[in-house]
Amino acid sequence: MVGYPIKKNREVTALSPITSRRGMSLEDDLNKSNQFYLETDRANVHKKPTPITIVTVSYPSRSKAKITEAYFRTPSTTDYNGVYRGRAIDFEAKETKSKTSFTLSSVHEHQIAHLRNVLRHGAIAFAIIRFTSLDLTYYVAAEKLIDFIDTTQRNSIPLSWFREYALHIPLSLTPPIDYLRCIDTIYFKGEKKE
Amino acid sequence: MVGYPIKKNREVTALSPITSRRGMSLEDDLNKSNQFYLETDRANVHKKPTPITIVTVSYPSRSKAKITEAYFRTPSTTDYNGVYRGRAIDFEAKETKSKTSFTLSSVHEHQIAHLRNVLRHGAIAFAIIRFTSLDLTYYVAAEKLIDFIDTTQRNSIPLSWFREYALHIPLSLTPPIDYLRCIDTIYFKGEKKE
Repeated sequence: MVGYPIKKNREVTALSPITSRRGMSLEDDLNKSNQFYLETDRANVHKKPTPITIVTVSYPSRSKAKITEAYFRTPSTTDYNGVYRGRAIDFEAKETKSKTSFTLSSVHEHQIAHLRNVLRHGAIAFAIIRFTSLDLTYYVAAEKLIDFIDTTQRNSIPLSWFREYALHIPLSLTPPIDYLRCIDTIYFKGEKKE
Repeated sequence: MVGYPIKKNREVTALSPITSRRGMSLEDDLNKSNQFYLETDRANVHKKPTPITIVTVSYPSRSKAKITEAYFRTPSTTDYNGVYRGRAIDFEAKETKSKTSFTLSSVHEHQIAHLRNVLRHGAIAFAIIRFTSLDLTYYVAAEKLIDFIDTTQRNSIPLSWFREYALHIPLSLTPPIDYLRCIDTIYFKGEKKE
């Protein structure tokens, strides 16, 4: 089980909230963050391509194949994974417009099953959930999310739960979403980085 | 470290070479192997979807979006990754029809860069290379592959190099390509699986 250190005044030097950033999608922010981590050699995390079933491909020129019929498939895993400090990391990202709760139906059932599975194999697994109307982004350990699902009958998670069980990620510029800081806090507390 | 509920005495009897399987693609074999690992709870490894740039999507019916124009993108990472015994694993798979050597140009330069990068972050990284005409499949540690690239001027790797520096993976039925066995040999030698 993951224990969150409940420290109120965590260092937030480079992480002052930048409210003018409202409107950037969570996916954009995460792509930028992952790019930043890659360039600064901190981690190697990528968004997986959207799964698609290709039906027809035409070859209008020698240089470039053109897909002319294809369909979206339901993803069977989470969208993001990679490696950080030797550990496999795996997460899903979701936005909600609600100001009061996060609806669980927006996470596919097999994505939850996937999170359970990678946890069992030792990955650092989590969800990043943003309340867009409130400009609040949370790091939710997969253990906590699964515990909520397993122990309640509710189909949505109230914001108050996030305040208690998730880590708030203050928005910054570089990277926009510094989720590795949450991982450090939970998994590598006190460890030196080299 | 996480303890896995791994059942002992799982069948490994099915590892005799099965020559009648010639003709199965490496990708099919790897998908089956990963499915087998998932079902037997040994590892969680997936092939990433093919990266595609979507240009036009039409909505012929309410139920299903249809992609009518899209193009293949060059992958910036390897095709396979996941988690095994707490470690991030990451690999690329390639086939060659040659009976004498593997041409390095079939691995994209940024895939090599990606392998270097994930190695640095602590992943177990490798390539699975099959000589289809010879029905020979090899596990090549990324370190060895990179060492070859960095220390020779050659643009292909002779089969004799594979015999010396790679691990031969005998084909079997379940799973067709038991690459976790190679990982166990290299990284978890002597360690118990629970």
